[in-house]
Amino acid sequence: MIKAYIISTGTELLIGSTIDTNSVFLSEKLMALGIRVVGKSTVGDNPENIRKAFSIGLSSADIVISSGGLGPTFDDLTKTVASEVMGTKLELRQEEADRLQAFFDRRRRKMPEINLKQAMFPPEAEVLSNPLGTAPGMYLKKGEKLVVLLPGPPREMRPMYTNELEPLLCRDFKLERKSVTRTIKVLGPGESQVEELIAEVMKNSAGCSLALIAQDGEVHIRVTAEGKDLNDSKLLLDSVTERINKNVGHNIFGYDDNSLSSVMSLLLTKHKKTIAVAESCTGGLLGRLMTDIPGSSSYFWGGVISYSNDAKMKMLNVDKDILENYGAVSSQTAEAMARGIVNQSGADIGISITGIAGPEGGTESKPVGLVYIGLAEGDFCETKELRFVGDRNAIRLLSAKSALDLARRHLQQHK
Amino acid sequence: MIKAYIISTGTELLIGSTIDTNSVFLSEKLMALGIRVVGKSTVGDNPENIRKAFSIGLSSADIVISSGGLGPTFDDLTKTVASEVMGTKLELRQEEADRLQAFFDRRRRKMPEINLKQAMFPPEAEVLSNPLGTAPGMYLKKGEKLVVLLPGPPREMRPMYTNELEPLLCRDFKLERKSVTRTIKVLGPGESQVEELIAEVMKNSAGCSLALIAQDGEVHIRVTAEGKDLNDSKLLLDSVTERINKNVGHNIFGYDDNSLSSVMSLLLTKHKKTIAVAESCTGGLLGRLMTDIPGSSSYFWGGVISYSNDAKMKMLNVDKDILENYGAVSSQTAEAMARGIVNQSGADIGISITGIAGPEGGTESKPVGLVYIGLAEGDFCETKELRFVGDRNAIRLLSAKSALDLARRHLQQHK
Repeated sequence: MIKAYIISTGTELLIGSTIDTNSVFLSEKLMALGIRVVGKSTVGDNPENIRKAFSIGLSSADIVISSGGLGPTFDDLTKTVASEVMGTKLELRQEEADRLQAFFDRRRRKMPEINLKQAMFPPEAEVLSNPLGTAPGMYLKKGEKLVVLLPGPPREMRPMYTNELEPLLCRDFKLERKSVTRTIKVLGPGESQVEELIAEVMKNSAGCSLALIAQDGEVHIRVTAEGKDLNDSKLLLDSVTERINKNVGHNIFGYDDNSLSSVMSLLLTKHKKTIAVAESCTGGLLGRLMTDIPGSSSYFWGGVISYSNDAKMKMLNVDKDILENYGAVSSQTAEAMARGIVNQSGADIGISITGIAGPEGGTESKPVGLVYIGLAEGDFCETKELRFVGDRNAIRLLSAKSALDLARRHLQQHK
Repeated sequence: MIKAYIISTGTELLIGSTIDTNSVFLSEKLMALGIRVVGKSTVGDNPENIRKAFSIGLSSADIVISSGGLGPTFDDLTKTVASEVMGTKLELRQEEADRLQAFFDRRRRKMPEINLKQAMFPPEAEVLSNPLGTAPGMYLKKGEKLVVLLPGPPREMRPMYTNELEPLLCRDFKLERKSVTRTIKVLGPGESQVEELIAEVMKNSAGCSLALIAQDGEVHIRVTAEGKDLNDSKLLLDSVTERINKNVGHNIFGYDDNSLSSVMSLLLTKHKKTIAVAESCTGGLLGRLMTDIPGSSSYFWGGVISYSNDAKMKMLNVDKDILENYGAVSSQTAEAMARGIVNQSGADIGISITGIAGPEGGTESKPVGLVYIGLAEGDFCETKELRFVGDRNAIRLLSAKSALDLARRHLQQHK
């Protein structure tokens, strides 16, 4: 089995302010290729420690992949040190210098001299292109050993892994995937409830391993199947997925890369419906989730952030009496908001959120975490009372996701 | 400065399903004590790799702290390996065996034989007690080197650090906090531009170390000062901060825990002004940032997510002619949106965003990443054209932060 060692560089990863998600992403991806990660190391911007990490990596693995330290500044040292460890040297590559220049031209900014460092590579190296930043990656294979350098920002590193690095790994190590993995995504029941629902499947699924991951209010069931070959694995995976589907039912909103936003996008497009939002305690988060998906303008009209009562009355025509009699956090207000945004916008569906995100503002009868969500379409309107436990951010995120999920179930006719 | 190296053990940390939060917690705590974390390593349950990690840790640091691998099962190897590396051996400690027995008695469970492993310690070691689990920690100081073993579960590790380990570290290393750290937060110029602005300070700041961290569109300058004592460090830190302030000026929006949202909250409260938003491509993100801060209802009226042209006209009274003549993405529309939300809401200040977040929808003259932001107060109105490079999420985040920053500069009268 091919072995890999992962290095993350950057002083910010040692001082406790930044969590290293890159190595987690890389571990998952390499695992899926059948490459075993034997160790990980995090080092600061110190050449001696970076050198040590590469040495230990090369002594315990065939492949060393690092992320970070490819920037233009004096403390970005990875490329220099890694090249030395591999017994080679950096030289300027004109086509990379030109590409950098073009990057700055597009932004109408002058390229600082120090950025030229990012166009230096050993002659043996292949360049991994980075359309999203100034730091290209590096792929340096010498003899039996391979060193790969990736940029630190996840939004640059991830596509570079997928588009550039993985094909090269498959080419040079003659890899073919044997195991397959699927993530089944659930909203509604908690982690232990999901565990109970799939207990029988977990006990009885030869060739498959299941893991439960609670993440941002969702529960993800991660199924990995490893059969005799890829095809066998896929059959195994499908049969376990089917059994899980039967047990967890409509609480499953999607698979793998699906998000609630992307599922909503598909459903609204399929049903040719438009949607608008009216949100209070989430302050715009529901709208942001609705617009995470490119092309959302074809179904998302927009909405109102009715944070104040004044905004609820002026922009959504919520009746003053409702606010006075039932309060801003009530199913009556959630209903009036959902109906209000449908009337104002002319969209087919309106969804609303009103609640107490805390940490202040709770009372005995209306505690922090009490949230009402509503959905209106034509004359139809439904509301739902939810009670969340958590901090302000968690309550807001759960509220927005639950409102999206209410609309998902409505469109799928699973009330 | 005392140096530490952190080791996390456990195969689950290498396969990508579990994020290692222990090392982040330990980094923060050690930093605050003035101990420098020079590296981190993650290893699976493999004795050879654990040995390597301890060796490299002891060769680069005074203190090696590991978490995980203290359980009773065959793959819990940390204590055995670490003791060997330190040139000593495990022996049964009767009082620990009794404590374990009591732990199981309280739960009315029979103690499995293998658990006795958890009562074995080198004679030189101090035991770190674990009221929350069966695995005690270990504190083994020999000569100049210290090895500490902590349990893996965060809910056991964290209190053990605080209640048991930190007092011993202070005792043995005569620690008192000597160094101080400040993060100076910048929005506007990029990382390399900030580096140029503070180049002179970086070259010339004895007793201080500076690091630049680019994060979510912001650039953070992290200054750590270490003088003769805490007071001296503070003076050093202040003088370097002042010099950085002089060079980077109003591009600095805050320090340490400040976010753009919290700075806005302070400014709006101080100036007793209310604010409302009108946002298009950010889809609600600007509102969400405005409401990240508890108590934002005292200054945030709400806003309109005018994602469609229909919403811009209906909810903000943007003139149809403006949309037709200049387009939805134009400084004219940004101005009309800012003025519109002020008129609709009655808030003192209105801020607006309209742009092309991509990946589709760009043209030659209006490419993806072109964004206009606007601010209106009374008769005053200003707009700003911005050009961002990056993916949809990055462009949206930068747009929302830039709009907040426009309001920050307006309130601070730094146009």
